Amino acid sequence: MTKSAATQHMSQIQSHLQVAPCAAQEESRIKTPIESMAEEREKATFNVRELTYYLDGGEKFTKVREKFMMELERDPTFRMYDMYDVTKDQIRERTMEKFRTIVHYVSAEPVPIFTLRMQTISLIDPGFWTRFGVHYGLFFGALRGSATSAQFSHWVSKGALALNGMVGCFAMTELGHGSNVAGLETTATFDETSDQFIIHTPTITATKWWIGGAAHTATHCVVFAQLIVRGKRYGTKSFVVQLRDTHTYGLMPGVNIGDIGKKMGRDGIDNGWIQFTNVRIPRTNMLMKHTKVSRAGEVKEPPMAQLTYGALIQGRVAMVVDSGNIAKKAITIAGRYAAVRRQFTSNPHDVQETKLIDYAIHQYRLMPLLAQAYAFHFTGVETNKLYEDLMDQLESTQPDDPTMNQVLDTLKETHATSAGLKAFCTWGTLNAIEACRQSLGGHGYSAYTGLATTYNDFAVHCTWEGDNTILTLQLGRYLVNCYREVITGKTQPDGVSYLNHLDTLLNQGCAVKTNEEILDFDIIQQAWGVVSANVVKKAGEDFDACLKQGLSPEAAYEECSQARLAAAKIHSFGYVFRRFTQAVRNAPEGLRPILTKVCLLYGLYSIEQNAGFFLQYRYFTPSQMDYVRAQVNAFCRAVRQEYIPLIDAFNYSDYMINSPLGVYDGNVYEKYFDQVKRQNPVGQPHPYLPLIQSLLRRDIEDDEPLEDDDDDDE
Amino acid sequence: MTKSAATQHMSQIQSHLQVAPCAAQEESRIKTPIESMAEEREKATFNVRELTYYLDGGEKFTKVREKFMMELERDPTFRMYDMYDVTKDQIRERTMEKFRTIVHYVSAEPVPIFTLRMQTISLIDPGFWTRFGVHYGLFFGALRGSATSAQFSHWVSKGALALNGMVGCFAMTELGHGSNVAGLETTATFDETSDQFIIHTPTITATKWWIGGAAHTATHCVVFAQLIVRGKRYGTKSFVVQLRDTHTYGLMPGVNIGDIGKKMGRDGIDNGWIQFTNVRIPRTNMLMKHTKVSRAGEVKEPPMAQLTYGALIQGRVAMVVDSGNIAKKAITIAGRYAAVRRQFTSNPHDVQETKLIDYAIHQYRLMPLLAQAYAFHFTGVETNKLYEDLMDQLESTQPDDPTMNQVLDTLKETHATSAGLKAFCTWGTLNAIEACRQSLGGHGYSAYTGLATTYNDFAVHCTWEGDNTILTLQLGRYLVNCYREVITGKTQPDGVSYLNHLDTLLNQGCAVKTNEEILDFDIIQQAWGVVSANVVKKAGEDFDACLKQGLSPEAAYEECSQARLAAAKIHSFGYVFRRFTQAVRNAPEGLRPILTKVCLLYGLYSIEQNAGFFLQYRYFTPSQMDYVRAQVNAFCRAVRQEYIPLIDAFNYSDYMINSPLGVYDGNVYEKYFDQVKRQNPVGQPHPYLPLIQSLLRRDIEDDEPLEDDDDDDE
Repeated sequence: MTKSAATQHMSQIQSHLQVAPCAAQEESRIKTPIESMAEEREKATFNVRELTYYLDGGEKFTKVREKFMMELERDPTFRMYDMYDVTKDQIRERTMEKFRTIVHYVSAEPVPIFTLRMQTISLIDPGFWTRFGVHYGLFFGALRGSATSAQFSHWVSKGALALNGMVGCFAMTELGHGSNVAGLETTATFDETSDQFIIHTPTITATKWWIGGAAHTATHCVVFAQLIVRGKRYGTKSFVVQLRDTHTYGLMPGVNIGDIGKKMGRDGIDNGWIQFTNVRIPRTNMLMKHTKVSRAGEVKEPPMAQLTYGALIQGRVAMVVDSGNIAKKAITIAGRYAAVRRQFTSNPHDVQETKLIDYAIHQYRLMPLLAQAYAFHFTGVETNKLYEDLMDQLESTQPDDPTMNQVLDTLKETHATSAGLKAFCTWGTLNAIEACRQSLGGHGYSAYTGLATTYNDFAVHCTWEGDNTILTLQLGRYLVNCYREVITGKTQPDGVSYLNHLDTLLNQGCAVKTNEEILDFDIIQQAWGVVSANVVKKAGEDFDACLKQGLSPEAAYEECSQARLAAAKIHSFGYVFRRFTQAVRNAPEGLRPILTKVCLLYGLYSIEQNAGFFLQYRYFTPSQMDYVRAQVNAFCRAVRQEYIPLIDAFNYSDYMINSPLGVYDGNVYEKYFDQVKRQNPVGQPHPYLPLIQSLLRRDIEDDEPLEDDDDDDE
Repeated sequence: MTKSAATQHMSQIQSHLQVAPCAAQEESRIKTPIESMAEEREKATFNVRELTYYLDGGEKFTKVREKFMMELERDPTFRMYDMYDVTKDQIRERTMEKFRTIVHYVSAEPVPIFTLRMQTISLIDPGFWTRFGVHYGLFFGALRGSATSAQFSHWVSKGALALNGMVGCFAMTELGHGSNVAGLETTATFDETSDQFIIHTPTITATKWWIGGAAHTATHCVVFAQLIVRGKRYGTKSFVVQLRDTHTYGLMPGVNIGDIGKKMGRDGIDNGWIQFTNVRIPRTNMLMKHTKVSRAGEVKEPPMAQLTYGALIQGRVAMVVDSGNIAKKAITIAGRYAAVRRQFTSNPHDVQETKLIDYAIHQYRLMPLLAQAYAFHFTGVETNKLYEDLMDQLESTQPDDPTMNQVLDTLKETHATSAGLKAFCTWGTLNAIEACRQSLGGHGYSAYTGLATTYNDFAVHCTWEGDNTILTLQLGRYLVNCYREVITGKTQPDGVSYLNHLDTLLNQGCAVKTNEEILDFDIIQQAWGVVSANVVKKAGEDFDACLKQGLSPEAAYEECSQARLAAAKIHSFGYVFRRFTQAVRNAPEGLRPILTKVCLLYGLYSIEQNAGFFLQYRYFTPSQMDYVRAQVNAFCRAVRQEYIPLIDAFNYSDYMINSPLGVYDGNVYEKYFDQVKRQNPVGQPHPYLPLIQSLLRRDIEDDEPLEDDDDDDE
């Protein structure tokens, strides 16, 4: 979209906002939930199907997703209606049944198609998706990333790809060690005599912990351990260790394993703990793509460690994508329910209570979350593209290529940005799930309405593959370095390019003639640029001040960590908004007006939530900030007009949503009641009836003391 | 504490802040977790036991609580070590066992002591506490509040107090109706011929829903229904309906009941749904303390409806108290773990990794939550006192008393303030639980570490007895009314008395000579007063503007709901801070220095989190706000010095905490491992082994197509 076209849309939006009807419309007759929903669909001013295609990356991909949804819904292995009531053992059993069904497609389908299949499944059953991801993403991914090609062929021939003859898991974290991989205690000591490594757990805190699939299902494991050769330590490397006999499933000698047990969510995966007691493996089980140990005990270390970043980035980008997908699911449930649930009325002439969504406050609760779901969706798509481009560049560039430095700069930027985005988006979505759950009122506390489980399943993202706070600080550290480079004249890559205009940005205010001009992508983007530049500068200055006080760089980073955290958060807001505006500009013309509204709502709401920084750095005046607050309400109302079509465009089937309150047709009460009755049939005996009966018919004289019969003593 | 004494403490604090040691202290030898914890206790500059007494309301109450903790810990019915693994049926069975144990004390113990017992239990097993509360708080409370004295005696004689012969539940909400009690659909139609009411569920949405205890355990129910006499509706009243035969436990004719099933948490209580089909009850089963229906069908309505507010306020105050208690539990777990968990080091000379709590960012994550737990604790205590005073006044004041208007003003204020506080504190604590959970890293996702379950159990508070957003808006509506009264000259009661100085406050800036003077209770309180006055005024003006546009008052309230929400939140921050400062001023002298630090941290952190408003209304300049941010870090560090003693003062036994990561002695890893092994014994067969074996040993030729044997066709 050109700037003038964008401006045109924005002025249309402004006139639309002025004529928006009052929240409480007068109702002339009682409407059923189904009718209440149907009338929302009539309000669409855009082609919902076209928006679905745009979100999915084209009609072809929409069709593929719909094929998957139908296949899964009809497959009894993937039945979901009873999932809120199954026990931990039952859900794990199902996981293995699904494994059997899905493993067939791994070799049969091209990777992008299979990825779509797994994305669809991740929305239905995150626990299964995790178990599958442990084998293919982590175990097989580690082989692909760290094995030599001979080693890789060896493990594929043993069945690692076809999942025939072996099932893998991935043992990095220990009971006492998480984010600090260099601090792991498990040792892999080279025994030259036998040409073997001895894998050993020296202490209780060195016990491998949280290992997905280890408790019962994995036969092999990639183990992270301290490489020790001839008494010298070389840091953490990875080794393939067989855990179980592949026929009897008995544990191998020296391998001791237990179940980690009950978790907050994702009980479909059998996380376990592992202790190794002098377990011997062949030297060639060490994955030697990077560091090599020869028969003679010579250790050869790799030239470029950065190249191993790739796998980390991939995991983070996947979580950004997942954040968008789950956010869409949560708002589908909360949004549809709000279109049919009625409560109170502010108009005494109404014959029926008012829809929740017709209350300004409910719009304010949900519409920004809808906008955020769109923002995260597009951020996921764009970030994924950037990641793939980067990987292509890395593969096609030789180490001595003159462009290699530039590629490495992009790698560093993507590594830092993806760390920050993973934290930013998973936090944003976790909060959105809880806000959506609460917006269902009391029903949000029922397991069957879906969001309680969604919360419990999703919460792991905030500490997975790096605790969110630590990842945010990583981005903050990168931004501090960028700032220090910029002031010495070094140009920064795309994601942080606003820092190249530091001097211009730092003291810039919002130079608009009328408040209405604030409703503009470029102004909002500038606003984020100005505020980001200021907070990054603040963190950089705090860091420099610590150095001047004589702290080491590491200590200085710690001292300015609060400033780094703020810098990274603000940077991420601006980054996500920019991705969203790009997606709006690239959208088909017919979709741009509605997407512009949603995008402006996201931008304005984010500013309101961070008002302190915009006022602190004087980009907005207090009266402009009042205008922003008022416009958040106005845009909530504007987006509300078409919010059901905007939700429909996500195109999640009722089966995928698995919540009676989020059904497409709006018939929420009947479907909710049916679900409760199917899972809890009436007239069943319950096991504690005798307890109640004895409680109700007890002899209260039990409690009374023996009367003191004084006569006897006399 | 006099002002000069407070100032003295504050200047001591300032000098203390300057000498606070750097985050990364050099360690000379490896310390065990137990040693790591022990050294924290040596840092106390105050008497921990004295603080416990102060928190508990005196030594006597501490002793009583300790007695309860010991009794519960030794009682096998209250065993907690396996609670994270029990099924819904098992946990419900335990609930009834506990019922039997506890019911003994109801009549034997004075109410304040029994309340302490139940508070202790609520921290251990919220599900049981809820089931018990449904009978005594809701069912029996409804009898006490709404029955005539003759009716009350009747139900007590049938066993309602001794819980012998009947168990009660409370049926207000319906499938389609929650917060809007006036909109309930269930009808109670008077049949003059038989002198009976006919209780009836006319539609599916009228099905009583969420009724705690109804699914299996209750014999009687207080039912809210629309009173209809001679075709005229009189609004929602309450009726006692028998649900089950008290001997056979079979359902009474016309009563249909089912189980609501699985919930997010609190599965110990059997929530159910109820449909009534023309169920007849005697006329005298209507609770007639307020509205009366005579034998002849005459309806007499009560003179003062406000007096029924009391029960609502009680529930809300209880949730404020519970918020403080649960917040203390969560920070005990997260805080103790942070004292022994080590990760990375920013000092290369360290022989051991650094404690989590020695990182500035971890201090920033946890210390404000510790301060908030203290703030909520004291708010609970003070609010409870205010509530009890108010009830005393109400009981001792006659309707025609000249002071009655003043009492009613206080009632209105307490009703509104408690609504806002319930929302503010339950939201604050829910967020704190999740933040504490995440601060445990990956281990926070284990059920055994306790915070996942705590989250799931606590989450219901945010929609219980009124959705938090709706309650916050109630307070906002009250504040708008206060504002409108103030500008017409009417003086406001204590909780909102700052509005009496509106003109002075509105344009006030922070008139300090040096930034250090900001670190003062009075300045911070003034800051909240100024900001609150401004946001309340904004909401009031928005409301007036809507009226001028011709909206009805109800519609105008809806239109300014976002402004009302902001006003209520800011008001509550100031209110809680004021309660905290009062508690500090009333504390024994030896405790004031440490409590002053904690209280200032709470005040400064809250300002930082709401910086936008303080800058918007120009109470603080941007450079003062930078100072506030810097001081938040400084106070986090200062409070960190004694944070373990501050946590110890909560005096929760290991049994109460029920988390191996929160144990008193710091021996977290061994206890965590023990817990996991006890609940998941090694060497157990698992049910899905055959599934894995067949997956691993499958004949992959199954997948291959029949080769096209062209020869045959020729």
